[in-house]
Amino acid sequence: MSGGTVDEREAIRILLAEIGQPRAPISAIGDDVAVLPTGKGRLVIKTDMLVRQTDVPPQMTLTQAARKAIVMCVSDFAAKGVQPAAALISLGLPRGLSEGDVRDLGRGFGRASAEFGCPIVGGDTNEAADLIIDCVLVGFAPDIIRRDSARPGDVVAVSGPFGYSASGLHILLEGGPVQTRFQRVATAAVLEPRAALSLGIALREAALPSAAIDSSDGLAWSLYELAWLSKVGVELDRLPQAPGIAQFAAAHDESMEDLVLYGGEEYEIVATFPPSKFPRARALAKRYNRSLEPIGRVRASHPQVWRRIDERRIPVDARGWVHLK
Amino acid sequence: MSGGTVDEREAIRILLAEIGQPRAPISAIGDDVAVLPTGKGRLVIKTDMLVRQTDVPPQMTLTQAARKAIVMCVSDFAAKGVQPAAALISLGLPRGLSEGDVRDLGRGFGRASAEFGCPIVGGDTNEAADLIIDCVLVGFAPDIIRRDSARPGDVVAVSGPFGYSASGLHILLEGGPVQTRFQRVATAAVLEPRAALSLGIALREAALPSAAIDSSDGLAWSLYELAWLSKVGVELDRLPQAPGIAQFAAAHDESMEDLVLYGGEEYEIVATFPPSKFPRARALAKRYNRSLEPIGRVRASHPQVWRRIDERRIPVDARGWVHLK
Repeated sequence: MSGGTVDEREAIRILLAEIGQPRAPISAIGDDVAVLPTGKGRLVIKTDMLVRQTDVPPQMTLTQAARKAIVMCVSDFAAKGVQPAAALISLGLPRGLSEGDVRDLGRGFGRASAEFGCPIVGGDTNEAADLIIDCVLVGFAPDIIRRDSARPGDVVAVSGPFGYSASGLHILLEGGPVQTRFQRVATAAVLEPRAALSLGIALREAALPSAAIDSSDGLAWSLYELAWLSKVGVELDRLPQAPGIAQFAAAHDESMEDLVLYGGEEYEIVATFPPSKFPRARALAKRYNRSLEPIGRVRASHPQVWRRIDERRIPVDARGWVHLK
Repeated sequence: MSGGTVDEREAIRILLAEIGQPRAPISAIGDDVAVLPTGKGRLVIKTDMLVRQTDVPPQMTLTQAARKAIVMCVSDFAAKGVQPAAALISLGLPRGLSEGDVRDLGRGFGRASAEFGCPIVGGDTNEAADLIIDCVLVGFAPDIIRRDSARPGDVVAVSGPFGYSASGLHILLEGGPVQTRFQRVATAAVLEPRAALSLGIALREAALPSAAIDSSDGLAWSLYELAWLSKVGVELDRLPQAPGIAQFAAAHDESMEDLVLYGGEEYEIVATFPPSKFPRARALAKRYNRSLEPIGRVRASHPQVWRRIDERRIPVDARGWVHLK
């Protein structure tokens, strides 16, 4: 590798080798959020950076980009079941933004702040070549839903359908008019992503999930993270495909499985539940106008993710979105 | 303004108009750090973004840049008297970095982490056109040293000399060899800046300062922030000029006053003290191998900063470093 170029994951590995993991009782680097003990319960912290070049398609407005920067970060809090208490926004702004541009950004921050009940309490503003929005969230909770605690026999479930984001990005980059209902829903998933914050908090308060993760690096990658950290296998008996994805995939010569498993930029909760608790979790989801669709089971196995189709076990690739790749 | 371009301060004003100030008991946006109540005492948070294009001169190594990103943020904690409990690092990395480059960055983070006793507990890694390092610090304290509590009669003092950074940057951009002692000290102030963290914490614990601010936007701007927030005047009877600055200024056809008052990128504490407490503060500084040099007095006046030279009052300009200007 020496002399070659590194991608995001290699960069993290190299950085970790240099800086080491923090010592207990502080959480290890690598979970969705960092956790520190406080007087009562835990302080939960997360930072997530949006970069226009990679995270903002041309049709996305500045208001939508600003809101998305916060949604990206809130999604991790949702998966951990923690209400963000406050946000800080660090901005890199290119030269030549107009007052209207900056107001549009502020509008997006304000919209997300109201939507998730999370006041913006500070930040930093800088000049940069491209628009950069780094969102920092902090929150307090007795504890978080962890990634390393899925147990064999648990139900694997997701808080929404997968595939809209990858299809929506495809539609936006094609540049044609958005006409059909499918096109509208898929592009909205890109431009106005949702985060299942209320559901995540309710699930943690009811102590229903055994483990959870957010799905922003793609469904397959999230399942692998759960499998690796919990040292279990994940068997999928169905895919949580969004309605209309199969037709879209066929019409665009794409693989439906790829759109659903490896799309990324989806802000759903991927969680595991003891079977006895899963019906209560589903009922809770309904109360928040959400669904929790079961897609498989946790198995005692070396860490791996596979699909069961009839009697065959088809391995799922351990790949997801990687910056700089 | 509509249609024109905005600078950093205008951007902040516009953003604040959109998002509003958080409600008590959370601190208002605009101080060095944000403060939230916790079970015991306060949670203190700060984010500060380093952008290579504007914050990293060509001679600065990646290790130095990484360390500087943390020093910039620690400096605010120093001025508030709070030990950072943890850091998160959000990275925007350009394509084509080598493994050695990333290791150099990690080394700088590790060095600053050890230097300030602050574990790095998480972060985020992204692709960006330029190197971006957003540092997030969190800490706990019973309270912070505020900006709005300087009182008429207080002594105004600084934790170190001013002018080295602006001179050092000048020397580095000139590109000649660094030979004299002055050149070495001035360029070190740019490449290896210090932050007066131990002193700041000791001052707060001893409850000695009435108000404090970090000086990274320049001495003049920091004094104006204290004056505006505390609704007082600041009268300077001397400038805290670094040794050799007058000669450097003369040799380079620069104004010594400009280098000292408006240089910026200096990470000293600017604080005010009730006169009865100031001797103890100076003795404390000595114990930390630092100095606290008195430079003037707080006066009952409308918010303004002036120098007293003989019997004349010469106003200091309210200007400092502004991104995007």
